[in-house]
Amino acid sequence: MLGVCYYPEHWREEKIREDVLRMRDLGIEKVRVGEFAWSYFEPRPGEFRWQRFDTFFQLAQEEGLQVIFGTPTATPPRWLIDRDPTILPLDKGGRVRKFGSRRHYCFSHPGYREEVRRIVTLLGERYGERPALVGWQTDNEYGCHDTVRCYCDRCKMAFREWLKERYGDIDTLNQAWGTVFWSQRYNSFDEIELPNLIVTEPNPSHLLDYFRFASHQVVLFNRSQVEILRKLSPGRFITHNCVGGFTDFDHFALSEDLDFITWDSYPLGHALELSREVELGMIDCRVGHPDLVALVHDLYRGVGRGRFGVMEQQVGPVNWAPYNTSPRQGMVRLWTWEAIAHGAELVSYFRWRQVPFAQEQMHSGLLCPDSTPCASFEEVKKVSEELQRVSLPPTERGPIALLFDYEAAWVFGVQPHGERVFYSDLVFRFYTALRRLGFDIDILPQGASLKEYKLVVVPSLPIVSERVLSSLQGVKGMVVFGPRSGSKTENFHIPSSLPPGLLQAILPLRVTGVESLPPLIEKVYWRGKEYPAGIWREWVYTSLQPEMVFGDGKGAAFRKGNYYYLAFWPEVELLVDFFERITQELGLCPVRLPDELRIRRRGNLIFAFNFGSQALEAPVSKEVSFIIGEKMLPPCEVAVWKEERL
Amino acid sequence: MLGVCYYPEHWREEKIREDVLRMRDLGIEKVRVGEFAWSYFEPRPGEFRWQRFDTFFQLAQEEGLQVIFGTPTATPPRWLIDRDPTILPLDKGGRVRKFGSRRHYCFSHPGYREEVRRIVTLLGERYGERPALVGWQTDNEYGCHDTVRCYCDRCKMAFREWLKERYGDIDTLNQAWGTVFWSQRYNSFDEIELPNLIVTEPNPSHLLDYFRFASHQVVLFNRSQVEILRKLSPGRFITHNCVGGFTDFDHFALSEDLDFITWDSYPLGHALELSREVELGMIDCRVGHPDLVALVHDLYRGVGRGRFGVMEQQVGPVNWAPYNTSPRQGMVRLWTWEAIAHGAELVSYFRWRQVPFAQEQMHSGLLCPDSTPCASFEEVKKVSEELQRVSLPPTERGPIALLFDYEAAWVFGVQPHGERVFYSDLVFRFYTALRRLGFDIDILPQGASLKEYKLVVVPSLPIVSERVLSSLQGVKGMVVFGPRSGSKTENFHIPSSLPPGLLQAILPLRVTGVESLPPLIEKVYWRGKEYPAGIWREWVYTSLQPEMVFGDGKGAAFRKGNYYYLAFWPEVELLVDFFERITQELGLCPVRLPDELRIRRRGNLIFAFNFGSQALEAPVSKEVSFIIGEKMLPPCEVAVWKEERL
Amino acid sequence: MLGVCYYPEHWREEKIREDVLRMRDLGIEKVRVGEFAWSYFEPRPGEFRWQRFDTFFQLAQEEGLQVIFGTPTATPPRWLIDRDPTILPLDKGGRVRKFGSRRHYCFSHPGYREEVRRIVTLLGERYGERPALVGWQTDNEYGCHDTVRCYCDRCKMAFREWLKERYGDIDTLNQAWGTVFWSQRYNSFDEIELPNLIVTEPNPSHLLDYFRFASHQVVLFNRSQVEILRKLSPGRFITHNCVGGFTDFDHFALSEDLDFITWDSYPLGHALELSREVELGMIDCRVGHPDLVALVHDLYRGVGRGRFGVMEQQVGPVNWAPYNTSPRQGMVRLWTWEAIAHGAELVSYFRWRQVPFAQEQMHSGLLCPDSTPCASFEEVKKVSEELQRVSLPPTERGPIALLFDYEAAWVFGVQPHGERVFYSDLVFRFYTALRRLGFDIDILPQGASLKEYKLVVVPSLPIVSERVLSSLQGVKGMVVFGPRSGSKTENFHIPSSLPPGLLQAILPLRVTGVESLPPLIEKVYWRGKEYPAGIWREWVYTSLQPEMVFGDGKGAAFRKGNYYYLAFWPEVELLVDFFERITQELGLCPVRLPDELRIRRRGNLIFAFNFGSQALEAPVSKEVSFIIGEKMLPPCEVAVWKEERL
Repeated sequence: MLGVCYYPEHWREEKIREDVLRMRDLGIEKVRVGEFAWSYFEPRPGEFRWQRFDTFFQLAQEEGLQVIFGTPTATPPRWLIDRDPTILPLDKGGRVRKFGSRRHYCFSHPGYREEVRRIVTLLGERYGERPALVGWQTDNEYGCHDTVRCYCDRCKMAFREWLKERYGDIDTLNQAWGTVFWSQRYNSFDEIELPNLIVTEPNPSHLLDYFRFASHQVVLFNRSQVEILRKLSPGRFITHNCVGGFTDFDHFALSEDLDFITWDSYPLGHALELSREVELGMIDCRVGHPDLVALVHDLYRGVGRGRFGVMEQQVGPVNWAPYNTSPRQGMVRLWTWEAIAHGAELVSYFRWRQVPFAQEQMHSGLLCPDSTPCASFEEVKKVSEELQRVSLPPTERGPIALLFDYEAAWVFGVQPHGERVFYSDLVFRFYTALRRLGFDIDILPQGASLKEYKLVVVPSLPIVSERVLSSLQGVKGMVVFGPRSGSKTENFHIPSSLPPGLLQAILPLRVTGVESLPPLIEKVYWRGKEYPAGIWREWVYTSLQPEMVFGDGKGAAFRKGNYYYLAFWPEVELLVDFFERITQELGLCPVRLPDELRIRRRGNLIFAFNFGSQALEAPVSKEVSFIIGEKMLPPCEVAVWKEERL
Repeated sequence: MLGVCYYPEHWREEKIREDVLRMRDLGIEKVRVGEFAWSYFEPRPGEFRWQRFDTFFQLAQEEGLQVIFGTPTATPPRWLIDRDPTILPLDKGGRVRKFGSRRHYCFSHPGYREEVRRIVTLLGERYGERPALVGWQTDNEYGCHDTVRCYCDRCKMAFREWLKERYGDIDTLNQAWGTVFWSQRYNSFDEIELPNLIVTEPNPSHLLDYFRFASHQVVLFNRSQVEILRKLSPGRFITHNCVGGFTDFDHFALSEDLDFITWDSYPLGHALELSREVELGMIDCRVGHPDLVALVHDLYRGVGRGRFGVMEQQVGPVNWAPYNTSPRQGMVRLWTWEAIAHGAELVSYFRWRQVPFAQEQMHSGLLCPDSTPCASFEEVKKVSEELQRVSLPPTERGPIALLFDYEAAWVFGVQPHGERVFYSDLVFRFYTALRRLGFDIDILPQGASLKEYKLVVVPSLPIVSERVLSSLQGVKGMVVFGPRSGSKTENFHIPSSLPPGLLQAILPLRVTGVESLPPLIEKVYWRGKEYPAGIWREWVYTSLQPEMVFGDGKGAAFRKGNYYYLAFWPEVELLVDFFERITQELGLCPVRLPDELRIRRRGNLIFAFNFGSQALEAPVSKEVSFIIGEKMLPPCEVAVWKEERL
Repeated sequence: MLGVCYYPEHWREEKIREDVLRMRDLGIEKVRVGEFAWSYFEPRPGEFRWQRFDTFFQLAQEEGLQVIFGTPTATPPRWLIDRDPTILPLDKGGRVRKFGSRRHYCFSHPGYREEVRRIVTLLGERYGERPALVGWQTDNEYGCHDTVRCYCDRCKMAFREWLKERYGDIDTLNQAWGTVFWSQRYNSFDEIELPNLIVTEPNPSHLLDYFRFASHQVVLFNRSQVEILRKLSPGRFITHNCVGGFTDFDHFALSEDLDFITWDSYPLGHALELSREVELGMIDCRVGHPDLVALVHDLYRGVGRGRFGVMEQQVGPVNWAPYNTSPRQGMVRLWTWEAIAHGAELVSYFRWRQVPFAQEQMHSGLLCPDSTPCASFEEVKKVSEELQRVSLPPTERGPIALLFDYEAAWVFGVQPHGERVFYSDLVFRFYTALRRLGFDIDILPQGASLKEYKLVVVPSLPIVSERVLSSLQGVKGMVVFGPRSGSKTENFHIPSSLPPGLLQAILPLRVTGVESLPPLIEKVYWRGKEYPAGIWREWVYTSLQPEMVFGDGKGAAFRKGNYYYLAFWPEVELLVDFFERITQELGLCPVRLPDELRIRRRGNLIFAFNFGSQALEAPVSKEVSFIIGEKMLPPCEVAVWKEERL
């Protein structure tokens, strides 16, 4: 279950032996290595060094550690860039992004893909069948540092080819993009540019296609590695470590070529990047938000078709957030158990030892640079011991599904239509409301089977295919749609029957207008209670009676049978009340948890987590016997008990 | 009076017939078409299509609609750009602004001007004498998307020529620009660069001349179209649709070649772009500020030498503002009557039908994309019926003139001397104060005759010519100057006699120093009352007794005969008190209106508008009979009655 | 003592005579001229004009004025740029910074250095031995407008050479930079780029070396001028006028080639640039902060090895700050006396007369553009008369030293590790706390002798050399270190024994972790009192008992003998309490001054300054006789008296 990220190339040989022994003693099972070591392996073209890694593999095998090998393709060496400087990506402003850090390559560059196949083949041949090797990680954090979308000439050429394949002939593209608008008509695919540096807003169909193209390049880039590794390293898993919650490429599509998915979990770094509330002290900057990490766990469990892990788990301050705070005592253990509760198969700490040089020298590890243990070291030890006591059942399907869609994020990004209109914000509102009611949530893509779920929430799904419609029609439970669902066709047009387009088969209404608003400027009334609203509102024409109304009396939410449509951007408070009632109707037993307590089931185990600064009581009857912790949870504490099934 | 913007190239032929009939039924008289259709007309070089427009002209003629034809020169087709990529403009950072939206051309490009003459000639020849055709619109929204000022090599060459013509020899330029400062001396016009990417602030004379040059290129570009259309389309008017309140080029100069002027009125979009108060809820984001649109109407009535219209009138949410709110019910009708009250000859709604594809698919129209009417449709119908009942007298000269100067805006932009020092803010303060007192205002350029006005306000006029001085000397009423008036010479020097320079002939004072300030940090006292002030303050040396004083007792305002000088940036509250007293002195009968009520006269009609959320009473005596509305105006309502003349 | 900045090239010959006489009458002794006049001297290549300067020298000699001549190398003429456009620097985004203002040159450009030697030689030959000439100023405000760091190809080449010299072979560099991290390994110095436009954060050792290199180019550039002037102008001093508090190059290193140092003091401009408190009205925007200017005086006295002056003293509103406020009456005199109190040998006002054209036309002078005196003129007259009455003793060493280090500023800049982590902020906190206790402070570089000081404060010194350690070990008094001291090696690694590295010889502790925080989110307890804290916190492992503790009980400050270590970012309130106690222990007699009163000793004179808006009492016993002013100081007033020594 537990792992660690390690860099044999950074340390002296004798240190490596010492480290391996300490890892084993700490209860570490898996060690990820190699993912930035290209210039260690091949300091000059065709000249190779393997010593530190050979040593490490030898020791790992002796001490029973399992190795995950990361391909080093996120960091092409300097000499390779000098042989072909066009490998470097171009930013949105058309400027070359220079060598000197990482991810300095264009995904669609044919020459670089060739080089990638060469180095991956060499590594696969050398280490692919070592007994200690259990799996591969391809590259590292695709897309980090805004690198999915490149604006170089090779991308332009590849984009034109991609369009040719998609549309066949240029008139079809003209139709699909609506180029009759503003004289944008093309006579040939060779006339099409990348959508940067345009005088004003580019054509949204053009932009969405470019986003699709760029996402697909990542999938192709990854696939070319997977194909080699499958051949050279049979029986080993292949994964990739994703940047948590990052949406520039379709993780579901990437994951199809992988055995399971991992993500890199930095709860404090992300909390501080994302939320002004943390800076304002409304959320503890050493704890983070109780639902942020859980959401991403659930997302990647869906991306991995039920199988996921954490490849990098924060253990102390990071070096890249606006404020790099230190987790409160207990949080590293809490995050580990939280990952496990959500079904993680691996929690691998980043990193074994803080490296005292280069860019990440201020990024902490389990050990200080002088090899003394940091605070988190003891927490990991504790988890590792506790894990002996707990027999982990498989993760089961929950009662509630949330549909997550990468293309939806792109559609919102292409035309947000308002300053605060973010797909991820909408998803988070639905997710946190349900979690506050004690529910487990499965996050699923468009194609997934939804039949067995009692409640399906669709925060928004602008582009609805026939396939997804039919899966939604098959749901026996309730389905709740958020705003903008069904609002666009495949080609980014407004549906000819108006939004929600295809969804009109289940929701007989027409959205005749929408507006974006400053926050909290509107009101919504539901069952006699007034809720503030803002950000987004729709005007709906329908013969259905509204379930909720706006300040001016017009309908804000509608229901037809087991389908709900919310025609606005709901505040969390409203969603909690709403879902409490809905789930009661569905016989789902919602439990209003304290703001900072969360629970999660895994098989017959229930986990509770206290994210607050006061002790909180786990929602159990008196007779429960605790495997870990107890009924009254101190701050940053965990409790685990067996479910009291009837 | 009423019109609509329509795009025959977007719709099927049979739809066009249906649309024309519905327009006629709605009471639409004029339809603007064509202004982005170049690649429809000429999909490949020299290959032409006219069908949809021929059809449209035919139908328009049959149904009695009048056509305004927009030349499509804001959107050169892709193939034209490929033939000469130097048509594309360069941004301030020196980067090419690519094809893919609109306005992707440089105004001074000789090759593009040639192509423009070619396409305008073709259109003039084909449609110039059609019976249905009543007028032309040149291009579309000159300068939108920051396109007046281009930084390409062609502009550099043209700028050098323009300077040569202006200064004759390089020594004259050196003198005019003060290049002895910082060793900026030039030995030849060929050494002069465009004023972008300079290490620090460029020479202000250099920058101002570049602004003048760039403005002049717009005028020349426009004139080349006008000359052709005059010849090929006799008897038709020529106009241009301006971006409301935009100051990068001199609209008075442009207007000299036109028959009248139009502007594109998007009250909510602009309110949200301009004002943080709207976001904060201090101004209703679905109504906007009561004086913002009125100011622009009055400005363009001045620009058009008494004749103006609205070419594009917002009818629902736009797609480009930070928040795209929906007008409150009644606002589209209110804006229409407001335009008419201010003298508009045309109110043309944008657009007939929301287009379901491309960049503006979220921009609403009178019809939804599925052709069902939007809320605004009924409001237009109502206006169209009401218009039958009202006989509109001609617009008369008002009692108060406000001097507006584009060069003044450039001077403030070149050296604002402080963070909040905007010419437009100063103009708005004077304008809104007078409007709150119930006055109609004529906005006029430097050259206009001012003799008949009882009050002339000059919010600021940094560069004063002998001509404007003599017109100001001819005023029999009162003249009130704001700060910075007379503060610069034609070449952007401080006058040798100090500011207000030439104005010293009427105002015997010297401004020996100025400062810019954070808002509300200073105080001004007038007639025993204390007013907060800030942003700008001047030190004045004079033998006149001050009318107002600053917190330290120094003079803040001075009067000599009928000339006033305000040596600070006045808050609106002070201006309302001040103008109330001044206008009483002048026998002008100010009426303090409620904050959200406004009135406006047109001939013998008086219009009242309620911009608030409560009912408000129109300022009339009991016996008045209303043509439209009644004494008590509900929110967003209009009333019209005949003036009770003695 | 008093001087003025003057531009003979701007004015007619007859004006120059008039000006010189008025300067003499005002009590001006020194006049700086020439520093932007290259294109006056040499309007075309090889064609020279000297007339205005010859006239000026003649008149200066006749009237007894002393001339300081500024070399005009900050403004290469247009024709020179045309002969070699590569002289122009490149900005961080890789764009050429064009001609049109000033400082448009790259410091490392060999061709430009050649031209600089030519013009300096010509000027040295012509004016170097004139009787009126007393000194030279090299160039003007090195680094202003962000010009120290250029990203052109010449800099790239020179940087590679500099690295070759520093590291000898590429493997040493690889080791020093830790390029094994992220595959950054180099095989040759020719592979190294400048650290701009990197995909993400560049290697910190790379960046720090580039900062060192760029700083060194300034020193070399300056030295090439100094060498010529020493030869051609014997007996004259050479100085440079620094931008106050600017840290992009090492002023101590520059100063080694100079006789003394000057800086350009614009208290209001800088206050408004730096502090949001001024905008918010918490600090008077016409007075500035009482310690900001004093800190820079003390810094440059250190930089100048005891000798410094003010080359440009603000006399009215400047033209470049966000708000350009006017100094309150009395402030120009106050600033003059403040400079003198801190040991200035020269206070030279900028500028004699406001120039009515070009970029700085809104920058005030002692005279208005029409030659009438401004308010400040009378204040200067008053100072000049008062100076007759005061015999100025030499400045003595104070009791307290503050260590200031330019490299420390770069280290903080390279990896701040948090949004509000600025070296200058930390320095300011220590400085202002001590000044509020009435102390005089000497600001010294790493190499300085500290033996005689009773208290040495080191706000932070990340890179500690053996030399500085031994000087700190020699201190007999107390030494107080702030956070991050000793946290990096010379090559920007974390020390192998952890921070504070070499300082562990005197402070036996290990910093095992750090975090950056939002402001005021943490607490520190000291002697029973609670203080808010934030921004930065360290975790310290040591056997020492803590002197202060954090909210969670962990140690926040430690003491070993006479060495203190503060492991957090202290608020000023805590520092005042802390230093009050410490200095009492040391027998130093702290005096808690009113917030807006400051005192400063020079020899046996004591100066008091009132920066407030209320009268304040000077901290003296009753019998003191005042040389200037009196015990009760009105706002903006100065008092001077003789110290009552026992």
